Amino acid sequence: MDAAAAQGTPVEAGDVVVVTQKIVSKAEGRVMAIDEVEASPLAIAITEGHRRDPRHTEMILRESRRVVRMDRGVIISETYHGYICANAGIDASNIPGSDTICLLPVDPDASARGIRDSIRQRLGVDVAVLVSDTFGRPWRNGAVNVSIGVAGFNPVISYIGEFDPHGNELHTTTIAVADEIAATAELVTGKLLGVPVALVKGYPYEPMEDADSHAIVRDPDKDLFR
Amino acid sequence: MDAAAAQGTPVEAGDVVVVTQKIVSKAEGRVMAIDEVEASPLAIAITEGHRRDPRHTEMILRESRRVVRMDRGVIISETYHGYICANAGIDASNIPGSDTICLLPVDPDASARGIRDSIRQRLGVDVAVLVSDTFGRPWRNGAVNVSIGVAGFNPVISYIGEFDPHGNELHTTTIAVADEIAATAELVTGKLLGVPVALVKGYPYEPMEDADSHAIVRDPDKDLFR
Repeated sequence: MDAAAAQGTPVEAGDVVVVTQKIVSKAEGRVMAIDEVEASPLAIAITEGHRRDPRHTEMILRESRRVVRMDRGVIISETYHGYICANAGIDASNIPGSDTICLLPVDPDASARGIRDSIRQRLGVDVAVLVSDTFGRPWRNGAVNVSIGVAGFNPVISYIGEFDPHGNELHTTTIAVADEIAATAELVTGKLLGVPVALVKGYPYEPMEDADSHAIVRDPDKDLFR
Repeated sequence: MDAAAAQGTPVEAGDVVVVTQKIVSKAEGRVMAIDEVEASPLAIAITEGHRRDPRHTEMILRESRRVVRMDRGVIISETYHGYICANAGIDASNIPGSDTICLLPVDPDASARGIRDSIRQRLGVDVAVLVSDTFGRPWRNGAVNVSIGVAGFNPVISYIGEFDPHGNELHTTTIAVADEIAATAELVTGKLLGVPVALVKGYPYEPMEDADSHAIVRDPDKDLFR
């Protein structure tokens, strides 16, 4: 908050404060040394011939509740939060030390709520908060930032039952604005700039006091790519 | 361009001009009446019990080169461009008439190049251009805008071989900045506002004269979700 004020863009009511997962995980003590871990036979077998340390692989398995795809060292799994991503969101970049890894926050919605509450207490303003992470996607090259935790706003807005300017009813359209805001913020934070927070100003989000990320995790019954 | 100047945000060198697919398709005559189409037995069978007209389904099949998933009227297919999306990108919203549908541009990269060239000719400035569309994703609710055509900039930037501030080498990170810019623009254009173009200012894209969207279509050999 002080940094934002110092650079002439103070946090104001109605901003979306986008905080990258890495800094949240660090603040919450989710960085660990891999020599605290013992690799299982499965983790060793998976990692055979791959650059990753088998103890790192072991932590990926421990942070997962389901493996979706596994091939040549690549693990796409469902985390206990319900997110499907590579390596259970664990990585080793932007943290000190070559034998340390960083896990996702235990409850990124709670992280977002905590940040939102502290901004309200300290500055007296209501903002939306989003915790972002960088996920790959099927079919398309390149990762993009998405939302893994929200507070104070509706992450998925619905146009169902509304009409376009030509009078056509929209039957199915919902937009994951939280993911679009996370993507927007990545254009500013980048990967190597050491910028862990971005402010998105002027976006008219739908305030929602009890928002959480369940809205963004697709129901297994409606997912053709489980 | 006149509209941008009139609202006090003229197109300037270095802008990314994001144009939604619908207006490009309309400009290129990719709107058609479904009574020009005869539904095949497959299209009729697929659409049984579904709201969509079988002739609309027929056009989805004709615009596809591979069906990836098909269930209860939902068709996820690969278009001849290589994009995997619902309904081959065909829809019926934001066009006049209840029996008209809108197809994707034949070559969205060529569309983007044409827009870029005309801006250069008319205003004498170099910009990046991106054609955006709204795609759903596996595992996550809500669609987001992505890029389907680019001109003048690198759509997927690579950090491979670079080092983070802690000296860790990045081995795999590439970021689909074109998709992130498309997502950013959707926050401004929305779905019902009748805004077909957004300008993204101040983003330091990597200029690339011969850019195209092949960079963003994942190689089948590297795709675990074909």
